Amino acid sequence: MKIIAYANAGRTALGVVTGATHFIAVHDVAPELPTGLIDILEMRDGLARLRQAVEGKSGDRALADVTLKPFLNRPNAMWALALNFKSHIAETGLQTNPDYPHLFMRTAASFVGAEEPIVAPPDEVARAFDYEGELAVVIGKPGRYIPVERAMEHVAGYTCLNEGSVREYQMHNRQFGLGKNFEASGSYGPWLMTPDEFGDPQRHTVLTRVNGVVRQRAPLDDMLIDVANVISYLSCGYSLRPGDLIAMGTPGALKPQPDDVEGLDLSRQYGPFPTPGLVHMRPGDCVEVEIDGLGVLRNRVIADPSYAGVE
Amino acid sequence: MKIIAYANAGRTALGVVTGATHFIAVHDVAPELPTGLIDILEMRDGLARLRQAVEGKSGDRALADVTLKPFLNRPNAMWALALNFKSHIAETGLQTNPDYPHLFMRTAASFVGAEEPIVAPPDEVARAFDYEGELAVVIGKPGRYIPVERAMEHVAGYTCLNEGSVREYQMHNRQFGLGKNFEASGSYGPWLMTPDEFGDPQRHTVLTRVNGVVRQRAPLDDMLIDVANVISYLSCGYSLRPGDLIAMGTPGALKPQPDDVEGLDLSRQYGPFPTPGLVHMRPGDCVEVEIDGLGVLRNRVIADPSYAGVE
Repeated sequence: MKIIAYANAGRTALGVVTGATHFIAVHDVAPELPTGLIDILEMRDGLARLRQAVEGKSGDRALADVTLKPFLNRPNAMWALALNFKSHIAETGLQTNPDYPHLFMRTAASFVGAEEPIVAPPDEVARAFDYEGELAVVIGKPGRYIPVERAMEHVAGYTCLNEGSVREYQMHNRQFGLGKNFEASGSYGPWLMTPDEFGDPQRHTVLTRVNGVVRQRAPLDDMLIDVANVISYLSCGYSLRPGDLIAMGTPGALKPQPDDVEGLDLSRQYGPFPTPGLVHMRPGDCVEVEIDGLGVLRNRVIADPSYAGVE
Repeated sequence: MKIIAYANAGRTALGVVTGATHFIAVHDVAPELPTGLIDILEMRDGLARLRQAVEGKSGDRALADVTLKPFLNRPNAMWALALNFKSHIAETGLQTNPDYPHLFMRTAASFVGAEEPIVAPPDEVARAFDYEGELAVVIGKPGRYIPVERAMEHVAGYTCLNEGSVREYQMHNRQFGLGKNFEASGSYGPWLMTPDEFGDPQRHTVLTRVNGVVRQRAPLDDMLIDVANVISYLSCGYSLRPGDLIAMGTPGALKPQPDDVEGLDLSRQYGPFPTPGLVHMRPGDCVEVEIDGLGVLRNRVIADPSYAGVE
């Protein structure tokens, strides 16, 4: 099952995608269910009731007619992993403890949905604004002190995530802080895919395209710490809640092709770790994160419309 | 004005404290106002209406008869500062960039209210469970790109905060991650005090007592980066929202008195930076964070009731 949230008369409604182009509006087939995905996840049998309501039906609404929004209303926690792909550890030269997930947090305000624009900081504020293509996991079943072998029972589904990062701010201190939390700097979507449809996350591949050029591509089994181990670790201290999100980390940059002028030009990189094949996100860009068998998260990048210049 | 949240028939209600022992229930004098403090802060004139509703009245309910709860319903972001007091930087030997606030995030789930127990991790999980007495700032007026000289206009008020930290988990990697986010590991309260009553935060002192012994005491002007500069910095990337909280960092440990057996015993410290005068929080302890002219935040520490042993 693929669950979307979409803009509907000034509010956000839920849908279930059927096939490549159409979806079923949840309020058409199950008006008794809550309008927020987290509220449905919090019901013991919420996802099962949703599945039953759409079973055997085909979508009568076109995806092309709606705008997809973030599907996690009021998430309690959005965790993210630093340095969880061997290729990214190698390109940064940074160290991480291989025995424990390297975790930090993001606010819901730092993410937009699949068809909303990502906002680049003004040049005067920062220039090293980077994509990070990732798999994200959404928790369905609450839990604490979860053993690794039962961790996957707590997963409600998966989505693509662009963990947009402002490197200058990230490097102000050891804690990433604001650098990972610029307003509307990242995105997730296009939908939540349930585990029965996605299968084993380690058997998929994540890739990131900027303006059509593939900039990251890595098998998800290149992760240092896998989904089950991250869930089990978190549950040692934190009670996982339905709707919590975990962004599983990003791989390194692909080596650029010989004719890739932009990817070869290190003089246009503002970050601390110049890397062939890395380009920054700039207003006007189209950035896509694709996970095979899951879908494509595609966002335009725009300049900050709220910025009125330096005082 | 001192605003509390308290447990009332299974829900949380708001009150305004008048004098040392009594308060006015907001629903008694302004039933038209929302029941959540953030909802009131989100109204342009919410605090002014609350002030008007209680003006000249004295409290008819006893603080002793109610349980104080966290007063921030569904905060959007809870920021915290690492290494913002010179005495704490000195005792850890760690480095921080003096030009920028050193920021990380906590979840609402990591905090309890003024009269709820703080939960210590089981010994098998972690032992270096530390208090951090702090001033916390709550945002009232939203804003982005806020100049330093206008930053204090965005403050709704102040409170005491215990930024309880699990050092073993904090040290697993460079990002603090789970170590700063154990469930119910910290607290804030007892109330939100508005700036007209609190005055200039730099002219106050924070202290922490464990079982009656003062373990931290520092003037708030020992901060590396002050409240106005933190607000202005955050607003470069993040749109501040009513109800956002900023914990301003903790000072170093006080040197123990000669007869202070516990404070002198470094062999009972499990953290990475043994420091005379530092003791860990343990079940049974009473921990108090006091800011002069603001109030005392007092919590009991309990063992985790949800822990059933290692499998």
